Amino acid sequence: MRSIELEQYLHEHIPLSKAMALAVVSVDEEAVVLRAPLAPNINHSETVFGGSATALATLAAWSLPFVRLRAAAVANRLVIQRNTVEYLRPIPGEFTARSRLETPESWHRFATALTRKGLARITVLALLEHGGETAGRFSGEFVAFRV
Amino acid sequence: MRSIELEQYLHEHIPLSKAMALAVVSVDEEAVVLRAPLAPNINHSETVFGGSATALATLAAWSLPFVRLRAAAVANRLVIQRNTVEYLRPIPGEFTARSRLETPESWHRFATALTRKGLARITVLALLEHGGETAGRFSGEFVAFRV
Repeated sequence: MRSIELEQYLHEHIPLSKAMALAVVSVDEEAVVLRAPLAPNINHSETVFGGSATALATLAAWSLPFVRLRAAAVANRLVIQRNTVEYLRPIPGEFTARSRLETPESWHRFATALTRKGLARITVLALLEHGGETAGRFSGEFVAFRV
Repeated sequence: MRSIELEQYLHEHIPLSKAMALAVVSVDEEAVVLRAPLAPNINHSETVFGGSATALATLAAWSLPFVRLRAAAVANRLVIQRNTVEYLRPIPGEFTARSRLETPESWHRFATALTRKGLARITVLALLEHGGETAGRFSGEFVAFRV
């Protein structure tokens, strides 16, 4: 799935991503990188609203198993079960969320369980960044069901 | 602070709250209740996007110390440091987030530390509800600075 395809998918199916002016920077097997500007995501302190930061990280994290399962042509429904976010510093401008699997080897276990049992869980991390610095850390547990 | 004042404040200072069509249901010393409809917060499964659910819970939780400190006329900057969210079931329609302090007695410690040391932390919980059922649980740690 190319960046533009993922961006169109997110804007079409998750209207909040469009309200956030989310852009897909890059997509590959290792990472999905999303970007959003400050203006639609600003808060009362003129920095990024925590809810926007979490939403961008959630979408970066969700998109990684989503694009990999799509590439593998495994029909599924993929939903978030739990997440934790640490906000390390205020974000006074454009920001990105860069996802990766918690452990690269977890993919094989996840894909096998999904195929054999119809249900599998995986943990995906996302780093929030601004101006080359880490601004926050997201960890999310996702569950996929065969459909 | 009345509900309509908090709603205006959120819509004006946090534009994402307006994009979510957030409404303030009630505000008092014990709880802030916020509501949002499905349409602007929908996801690919036609249920509420996890990022929207977390954003509503974050705002319900943040608003509780915000309105109490404002009532006490304590000038401050209040920001989120960390949160955890459990998504218990999909939300197929309008939803609410209802906040409360983790422990009622934490307020006195928080307000005293903020006045004496200029810095204080407090944990605020929020329940996500749909159709009378709990759909998710949010726990957030906030820090306030005297300004």
